[in-house]
Amino acid sequence: MRLVIKIGGSILYKNGQLQLSLVKKWINVISELKNQGHYIGIVVGGGSPARIYSSIAADLGASKDYQDIIGIESARQNARILIAGLKNAYPYPPQNYNELVNACTSNKTVIIGGFQPGQSTNAVAALFAEHINAEILINASNISKVYDKDPKTNMNAKPYDKLTFEEFGNIISSINQQPGDYALFDLLGYQIIRRSNIPLIFFDGKNPKYVFDILKGKNVGTVIK
Amino acid sequence: MRLVIKIGGSILYKNGQLQLSLVKKWINVISELKNQGHYIGIVVGGGSPARIYSSIAADLGASKDYQDIIGIESARQNARILIAGLKNAYPYPPQNYNELVNACTSNKTVIIGGFQPGQSTNAVAALFAEHINAEILINASNISKVYDKDPKTNMNAKPYDKLTFEEFGNIISSINQQPGDYALFDLLGYQIIRRSNIPLIFFDGKNPKYVFDILKGKNVGTVIK
Amino acid sequence: MRLVIKIGGSILYKNGQLQLSLVKKWINVISELKNQGHYIGIVVGGGSPARIYSSIAADLGASKDYQDIIGIESARQNARILIAGLKNAYPYPPQNYNELVNACTSNKTVIIGGFQPGQSTNAVAALFAEHINAEILINASNISKVYDKDPKTNMNAKPYDKLTFEEFGNIISSINQQPGDYALFDLLGYQIIRRSNIPLIFFDGKNPKYVFDILKGKNVGTVIK
Amino acid sequence: MRLVIKIGGSILYKNGQLQLSLVKKWINVISELKNQGHYIGIVVGGGSPARIYSSIAADLGASKDYQDIIGIESARQNARILIAGLKNAYPYPPQNYNELVNACTSNKTVIIGGFQPGQSTNAVAALFAEHINAEILINASNISKVYDKDPKTNMNAKPYDKLTFEEFGNIISSINQQPGDYALFDLLGYQIIRRSNIPLIFFDGKNPKYVFDILKGKNVGTVIK
Amino acid sequence: MRLVIKIGGSILYKNGQLQLSLVKKWINVISELKNQGHYIGIVVGGGSPARIYSSIAADLGASKDYQDIIGIESARQNARILIAGLKNAYPYPPQNYNELVNACTSNKTVIIGGFQPGQSTNAVAALFAEHINAEILINASNISKVYDKDPKTNMNAKPYDKLTFEEFGNIISSINQQPGDYALFDLLGYQIIRRSNIPLIFFDGKNPKYVFDILKGKNVGTVIK
Amino acid sequence: MRLVIKIGGSILYKNGQLQLSLVKKWINVISELKNQGHYIGIVVGGGSPARIYSSIAADLGASKDYQDIIGIESARQNARILIAGLKNAYPYPPQNYNELVNACTSNKTVIIGGFQPGQSTNAVAALFAEHINAEILINASNISKVYDKDPKTNMNAKPYDKLTFEEFGNIISSINQQPGDYALFDLLGYQIIRRSNIPLIFFDGKNPKYVFDILKGKNVGTVIK
Repeated sequence: MRLVIKIGGSILYKNGQLQLSLVKKWINVISELKNQGHYIGIVVGGGSPARIYSSIAADLGASKDYQDIIGIESARQNARILIAGLKNAYPYPPQNYNELVNACTSNKTVIIGGFQPGQSTNAVAALFAEHINAEILINASNISKVYDKDPKTNMNAKPYDKLTFEEFGNIISSINQQPGDYALFDLLGYQIIRRSNIPLIFFDGKNPKYVFDILKGKNVGTVIK
Repeated sequence: MRLVIKIGGSILYKNGQLQLSLVKKWINVISELKNQGHYIGIVVGGGSPARIYSSIAADLGASKDYQDIIGIESARQNARILIAGLKNAYPYPPQNYNELVNACTSNKTVIIGGFQPGQSTNAVAALFAEHINAEILINASNISKVYDKDPKTNMNAKPYDKLTFEEFGNIISSINQQPGDYALFDLLGYQIIRRSNIPLIFFDGKNPKYVFDILKGKNVGTVIK
Repeated sequence: MRLVIKIGGSILYKNGQLQLSLVKKWINVISELKNQGHYIGIVVGGGSPARIYSSIAADLGASKDYQDIIGIESARQNARILIAGLKNAYPYPPQNYNELVNACTSNKTVIIGGFQPGQSTNAVAALFAEHINAEILINASNISKVYDKDPKTNMNAKPYDKLTFEEFGNIISSINQQPGDYALFDLLGYQIIRRSNIPLIFFDGKNPKYVFDILKGKNVGTVIK
Repeated sequence: MRLVIKIGGSILYKNGQLQLSLVKKWINVISELKNQGHYIGIVVGGGSPARIYSSIAADLGASKDYQDIIGIESARQNARILIAGLKNAYPYPPQNYNELVNACTSNKTVIIGGFQPGQSTNAVAALFAEHINAEILINASNISKVYDKDPKTNMNAKPYDKLTFEEFGNIISSINQQPGDYALFDLLGYQIIRRSNIPLIFFDGKNPKYVFDILKGKNVGTVIK
Repeated sequence: MRLVIKIGGSILYKNGQLQLSLVKKWINVISELKNQGHYIGIVVGGGSPARIYSSIAADLGASKDYQDIIGIESARQNARILIAGLKNAYPYPPQNYNELVNACTSNKTVIIGGFQPGQSTNAVAALFAEHINAEILINASNISKVYDKDPKTNMNAKPYDKLTFEEFGNIISSINQQPGDYALFDLLGYQIIRRSNIPLIFFDGKNPKYVFDILKGKNVGTVIK
Repeated sequence: MRLVIKIGGSILYKNGQLQLSLVKKWINVISELKNQGHYIGIVVGGGSPARIYSSIAADLGASKDYQDIIGIESARQNARILIAGLKNAYPYPPQNYNELVNACTSNKTVIIGGFQPGQSTNAVAALFAEHINAEILINASNISKVYDKDPKTNMNAKPYDKLTFEEFGNIISSINQQPGDYALFDLLGYQIIRRSNIPLIFFDGKNPKYVFDILKGKNVGTVIK
């Protein structure tokens, strides 16, 4: 199967510390997927270091695009940590779409952070999925399911098992988003998976093994298609 | 003044022919702006060749991201034509954000087409404007004003002289957009100008000299801020 | 067999329109050659868009080398269209000799436009053939045979089935050539195939299937060796 | 004056937190130096994030050279933070010697992290100083003076105001060094400053303003020449 | 004045030794030209090291294009030697046309060796001259004048003071040339200067100061225009 | 087996002439190693051309780092000569660590010269060995054994068959080294092989076939581990 997994930065850090045991679980899952013959692309988010360094850059007077660059570099550092533990990974994270295209001509597992200011790693994951003609895009984050409202502030928020692209589009459009404020999934990423008809699956990224359930067709979060 | 001008591909072509007289007018305006001491960034769209080549690529079975690449290359060819007629232009169109950053360290007028699949040249223009800390972003296209509805299909569509960012955001959100279907302005571009608070001005790109009116504060189209 | 095919831009366009059915035929032939185990390099010319954009650049005052760059970019766009329809193509056209060398270390079919001002895509094709140690260089254009004189202006021009390198050299030397005026084959390309002793075959590029006849040793045009 | 300042990563972090107030002081000093007409190169170390990420990479089984790469990337992130606050900085940290050479052809203040596995940022600073023909190399770290023994473990360690290159070479040779264990200054860096005869000055990097004293010829730490 | 000087490799070496005193003379002339306000491009040939290394590569079975690469690298090493002695030179020789274009946006004196297999440094010099819109191209080699026949083998060979482009074209066409066999000037280079109408001046490159005479309009060799 | 061979430039040249017969022997050995299934990395030194050109650059006033660059380029030319004779070599010498990492993702035999000023090709060889996780690093030079003193000046210098890393470190530390003065092995290279525990074997590089003896475990020089 051809798939892209977006690993949210939020699950990789706790109190500013990289969660090494979780990183190791992900490395094992990626290795096993590769051994099973799947073609996998990995996109890693920035997490708390991205937010901290970006806000320092902001404090120092940097423009918004430069703040994004700082965050992207933190995401790339996370990508490098995953590469450190993988035998068959491409040796560094490609830094733009062209480098990604090049890296994908190798037989290595390609792991990337972000590409460009103004877009989230979700958008990059969607683009990666489109490029390799992925059959699914898995979003492994601290959002185990998509809700109709923000579950943190709405006790009666209703989780979804399935959504159409249209329903999902309406939910994320109703959230007032700015680049950098990608609570759920950004609109650019949504537009890409929709135009190329790539199913998107949300699940709790703290349990990497669920990926095998997803590949068997079990619903462990929310499926959008 | 620091400004970015997005020249829509749609106005550069008529029946598949590049409109050389209009190109020359734009070259004169850009040269004069430079002579007056303004710092200008130029983004050029793809126009009909972009659409034609992209649809041929689609017909040949290319993925959506590759179709976008084809369109971006057509936009870059348009950028090269403008460069051909300018004395102080950067000698080629930078191909990604990093190359743009580099090019902007020169004293040349930088002219670009697109950057990456999944985003319009409007988004690229917004990013360029944010990077150089532009005071305005001018959108020179065949849309001389923003309307509340599509004026082609609604006889009583109402044009706006001014819009707040929020009002403009509501208008473009109400249009069901896909990357590549950037009738007005894409959401990514909108999010960027909004977060960096860059006024956006639409005007009829077939009259390049109106740029001087805009710089004098005259309203020749729709101002969004 | 190791071979390079130069596909002339002139046959790809008719009245300014890309001939999609011919493109598809070429894509099928290239795929079949690859399936049969041949190692193929493809060079594509610019055709009428190259001429149109170059002359616009000239009209805008661009130098000759810049005019050539504009034409080369049109040829690259044609190369990208072929890539769009091929499964195993290198994902983009290498832009100079070094990138070509790199691309050839992959197992992909490499498709290029031009490289550098001052030389035709024929010279690039000869260089490509030399680099991969090609056994033949096939020139597929609207010149189905080499004549002793220009057949368009000389009714009694005599076509050749075979020519030695020397005879061919004399014919092209007798034509007053400038870079960009590559009616038959440019001198640089000729010098390269001659020094590396690579047979050159002209045939009518509007019938891509003739390539299979050529590989079987049938003479469908003019053979130079 | 032409000078290179190496800012040790150790002083930039306290309990894993970037010391923003110290960063701001350094930014002010660098800006002021630039305003006074000095030509400055800046090299920034990695500090605790470099050590933490490198040791995680080690834990995941990465080779030593890859661990170094991880540390270098942390140093580059620190360099980017300085760039964030400077008006006239080169827009990103050059990543190898060639990129440094290129960056130095601009009029921007160039700020770098590391270059290559196996060498410390001290060696990179020495190389930078040699390249720009610097008159001094200032080492701003938590080592305010060079001692004859490690002052942390030897109560009667004797600080030096001045050292010859030879004396300094003997001190650092007596410390059993490995790449990555650059307590004082690594041997490669030492060999470079010695062969090009560049005075090296250690001082307490937590007081950036002392740089102005150094430029006036005051001895605020240890001078090696 | 805008000019390109091609310094033949043949004059730089004698019995396999680089002629340091001549190199120094050339460095002085280039510096003085720069000081006088001229815009200069320099192209350096390979000389005997290029021939020796190329023929070793041939002996080892390398293809003709690889032999050319080896020769080009020897020419680049010569270019680096000139750069070593110049204060305002671009810090390394650009390696292809695109790098040249980039380098020419700096204010440095750009010095190059070759670009690509199959073409001589004469062709590169012509291309460089065309790119910077040079008013003359000076060919400083051991050919102090153009003769109607090879003066080494024809005692009564007649030297020319002046030639038209056409006359010169006829002379070099009559010599049976192969790439690499550029005794006088190669055809590609000729075609470029002719199409852009750039006067070419041959003179004895062992007397660099004659360049000043040439700039004053004195005829010290053969002028082709 | 995974191994790196450093071929000293000193053995490749005699009286300024490249020793072609020795080069051919090395090419045969490298080919055979490859055929036997070993994974080999090759680093080639600069030899007398490196010294000659560097000292010319020094004479012309170049800085020490630029002199090193000149020497590195001579080493790369030697690397290209080896590539000329090998069927499965990576087509050019990677020029920095990142390019090396990239080249190593291919299945080609990678052959390099130097990387960066201030470090010898020994350090580069150690880095290469570390990167590919080599089991041994073979130093093939005119030093067939390590001695306790310089054997050229001490008649009773004692050769070693075996040395520990520590003993070897003491020997090279006792030699007063500068970058560029790498009589035996430079400290940076030593630190790298020691930290990654890579055995280093010295042997007489004029007998390339001894490599097969080394791989069989025979001691033909000095083994350091």
